[in-house]
Amino acid sequence: MSERLEQFRAYREKMNERILAEKHQQINRFFALDTRTYEAGALDARTKEMLGLVASLVLRCDDCIAYHVIQCKREGVERSEFFEIFNVGLVVGGSIVIPHLRRAVELLDELEKE
Amino acid sequence: MSERLEQFRAYREKMNERILAEKHQQINRFFALDTRTYEAGALDARTKEMLGLVASLVLRCDDCIAYHVIQCKREGVERSEFFEIFNVGLVVGGSIVIPHLRRAVELLDELEKE
Amino acid sequence: MSERLEQFRAYREKMNERILAEKHQQINRFFALDTRTYEAGALDARTKEMLGLVASLVLRCDDCIAYHVIQCKREGVERSEFFEIFNVGLVVGGSIVIPHLRRAVELLDELEKE
Amino acid sequence: MSERLEQFRAYREKMNERILAEKHQQINRFFALDTRTYEAGALDARTKEMLGLVASLVLRCDDCIAYHVIQCKREGVERSEFFEIFNVGLVVGGSIVIPHLRRAVELLDELEKE
Amino acid sequence: MSERLEQFRAYREKMNERILAEKHQQINRFFALDTRTYEAGALDARTKEMLGLVASLVLRCDDCIAYHVIQCKREGVERSEFFEIFNVGLVVGGSIVIPHLRRAVELLDELEKE
Amino acid sequence: MSERLEQFRAYREKMNERILAEKHQQINRFFALDTRTYEAGALDARTKEMLGLVASLVLRCDDCIAYHVIQCKREGVERSEFFEIFNVGLVVGGSIVIPHLRRAVELLDELEKE
Repeated sequence: MSERLEQFRAYREKMNERILAEKHQQINRFFALDTRTYEAGALDARTKEMLGLVASLVLRCDDCIAYHVIQCKREGVERSEFFEIFNVGLVVGGSIVIPHLRRAVELLDELEKE
Repeated sequence: MSERLEQFRAYREKMNERILAEKHQQINRFFALDTRTYEAGALDARTKEMLGLVASLVLRCDDCIAYHVIQCKREGVERSEFFEIFNVGLVVGGSIVIPHLRRAVELLDELEKE
Repeated sequence: MSERLEQFRAYREKMNERILAEKHQQINRFFALDTRTYEAGALDARTKEMLGLVASLVLRCDDCIAYHVIQCKREGVERSEFFEIFNVGLVVGGSIVIPHLRRAVELLDELEKE
Repeated sequence: MSERLEQFRAYREKMNERILAEKHQQINRFFALDTRTYEAGALDARTKEMLGLVASLVLRCDDCIAYHVIQCKREGVERSEFFEIFNVGLVVGGSIVIPHLRRAVELLDELEKE
Repeated sequence: MSERLEQFRAYREKMNERILAEKHQQINRFFALDTRTYEAGALDARTKEMLGLVASLVLRCDDCIAYHVIQCKREGVERSEFFEIFNVGLVVGGSIVIPHLRRAVELLDELEKE
Repeated sequence: MSERLEQFRAYREKMNERILAEKHQQINRFFALDTRTYEAGALDARTKEMLGLVASLVLRCDDCIAYHVIQCKREGVERSEFFEIFNVGLVVGGSIVIPHLRRAVELLDELEKE
């Protein structure tokens, strides 16, 4: 795994632990809810991760995009499918999405090399 | 078809025509691009409409949500699947999405009665 | 109670019921979480409603603003305090907040007449 | 003047007066600042209104868009120039801007008939 | 004071000075307005800083969040109260707020160690 | 040219190439559309770049702001005019724009030294 990816994962994990350790009931429930939202239900996990990715793209959150790119890759989303998701995000969200698209493609390239 | 839905469709069509009649090259190309974005490619049209719906939800645009709810229904998206999309939109976008979710569910109920 | 306010409350209640009746576990949990978020904890309910109001203002959601204006009024927030919250929302969010501020003040005036 | 436009202007004026009557110092200063922002300086008023319009478009605020369309028209912005502004707003902000574009063009058509 | 915090403060101060040195009347007035918005009035400074923090959280601006976390700490906001503000921001703004929450908690931990 | 600017331009170019190399028809058309949007038409290129800059400011995208600051500079936008654009962005978008304004002014200062 690349150093940048490893740092991203480690920081994410460390801070999630610190947040949950506070034991704020509603915050901890939100985190649990967030995890379960992407589990298979009436839609499979793969489709749900794609939904999470396009939502993150149009809201332009790099960390959220990175997370869902990783999850989509795990669920077997193909490169050509990623670009379809990117296209929807780009057309709905406009050129303001492009800088995030550049970083998403860079990460995807990196994941494909692993 | 309900009166409200008919008005929505008529206004949309009338104004799109007026915009395109201006023959601004880039605007017309954007509209063409927007249409083709939801056509089947590496992902099928059904999945792409679901992506369009969740993107519209988190960006909180009622007209865009209504359009994609209608298109998803045409593509055979089931009620239980709609609620999965709504859930992703709600968790990613937060409680600020709820007023739009109410109107989306109202429209879905209306479409199911047709 | 004014007719407009009554309609707002009735629609809200009717659609919330319809959404919850679907029994989508995560959506229902989100609604429960949303309610509990404004209950007294380390901060009292009054302060939390003020936080909800300013968050709704800068995100420019009329329904959410209306809801929190009503809740703040119930918690005894004074008119001069409302304008302090409006000021923070206006300065943080910019002139784009003004149309929502107009409607918030209209509602506040209406609530004060009740 | 059309009835819809007249209502828009009357509501705007009435509520601005009510807000300013509260005499909240910072809010009143913000309103003064907002007005002066579009007065001629290093850039002329016409260009500044065009900037205000495109900013309102990408932030998707119908009332702000309507206000700046009216102001741009007063400053002599031509129909072909409006569509250039709309194009920038559409490409930067994405298809989510389209519903607002429809209403902007409808208003522009209305203003041109006066 | 930690190096990261010191850099944040130094950059902020240096650039504010450069901006104000331009002597653009409205920009300078906006900066003055921004400062006075958080001074005690009908609401005390502590509450106003909490409002500024939650507004920054839902608008997902790391620099603004950092600034208001620092100000809230100065005003004596307790750790348990911070998590209440974070909770409102998270529920209103959704999971898209989480990456900013991680950085806010990291900064809070850092401030508490000083 | 400064190192930071050179890196920004090199990364932008490299990733744009990689995105276009995928040959996703709609994405490539969007990129072409984006470029042509700022070419002279009913409005000159200089005005269009100013529109692009203010749109990027209120949407708070640093990369987009940097790009349009560079383009505006090339089109001969004067320092005093830049501050007029910054003022519109600040008043429309609010104090949340300030961190981006700091970085925009830093870049402008850097470009003026070249």
